[in-house]
Amino acid sequence: MKKHKAENITWHDSKVSTGDRTRRKGHKGAIIWCTGLSGSGKSTVAITVERMLFERGCHTYILDGDNMRHGLNRDLGFSPEDRHENIRRIGEVAGLLADAGLITITAFISPYIADRNIARDCQTSAPFIEIFCECPLEVCEQRDPKGLYKKARSGEIKNFTGIDAPYEEPAEPEVVIHTNDETVQICAKNIIKYLEEQGILST
Amino acid sequence: MKKHKAENITWHDSKVSTGDRTRRKGHKGAIIWCTGLSGSGKSTVAITVERMLFERGCHTYILDGDNMRHGLNRDLGFSPEDRHENIRRIGEVAGLLADAGLITITAFISPYIADRNIARDCQTSAPFIEIFCECPLEVCEQRDPKGLYKKARSGEIKNFTGIDAPYEEPAEPEVVIHTNDETVQICAKNIIKYLEEQGILST
Repeated sequence: MKKHKAENITWHDSKVSTGDRTRRKGHKGAIIWCTGLSGSGKSTVAITVERMLFERGCHTYILDGDNMRHGLNRDLGFSPEDRHENIRRIGEVAGLLADAGLITITAFISPYIADRNIARDCQTSAPFIEIFCECPLEVCEQRDPKGLYKKARSGEIKNFTGIDAPYEEPAEPEVVIHTNDETVQICAKNIIKYLEEQGILST
Repeated sequence: MKKHKAENITWHDSKVSTGDRTRRKGHKGAIIWCTGLSGSGKSTVAITVERMLFERGCHTYILDGDNMRHGLNRDLGFSPEDRHENIRRIGEVAGLLADAGLITITAFISPYIADRNIARDCQTSAPFIEIFCECPLEVCEQRDPKGLYKKARSGEIKNFTGIDAPYEEPAEPEVVIHTNDETVQICAKNIIKYLEEQGILST
């Protein structure tokens, strides 16, 4: 195995490094992890942040239900184990994308603290920025953009976060946004301000 | 559900598109899938191609055992089912990276045609370029950079590709490189020439 290790070191010397990517892209890779109830505005905020970052010349990508549940995680259902594995894989993929130099934005309810911590601890040196999309349940239920609360109340959907399954609020999120009181633009700007403060974006 | 669909369409309108990414990066996203025996030079070629692309200003990423087996796929062993799932997930992740605009290079033995075809059919519109790293078994075994052939011959490792497990050669790979007869630079240049011909890179 010694030979293998030594060979690996030689390879890594010529590999394109994290530093190479940062210099090329003009910003660091990072994971922006949006968590919150269904209807709390995670996807809308993610898209707005991505557009603002793109206009500034950043390289970005959004992971959401559309590109994860139909592809990589299509073998997973909604049992507790599968939900856990779903978040674990999203965390690992976000880590790879961030390692590739992208500012990666995820938009999943991700209701459990333990799962979000697993995502935080995935194998990447990129910063993990937890964004709590705070919004009262009543407001989310009133918005009900996908009609899911209605189905949860009628019993058509079981184990729906906020109705008959818990949402564990982040204890120490990097950023809290209040999608009930602030416009999506203000929420997005607050996230970008944090990226600047952390030196992920140049100012 | 109609409301959901309509909202999704609104979102997608403002989403950063594949076209936006291509214009920003100056090249298309793509998957360069290197397949071949252990010791056939997949990783060395991948690193050389990545370095050449990076020098041209391209945005790239390599998926290999180092960043897949210890992270996303650390729950998988070496049973036939787990090997299959390993390649499926790599294909899906490569698809996401390519969708994010990166030229993604994978370096895995990936011995089965069926598995490589699953990777080819993952959910991305990015081109899939299969690179057959052709090299006689005797040469690979002589190189034995990780000492694995020795262990396979002694029985310490079971089901080792080329020894007691099959390698199914690609029937119609996009590019064949001969790592026994050509330098790694020539092999890498042949791959880059293909990317130019396909309009993935501008010439």
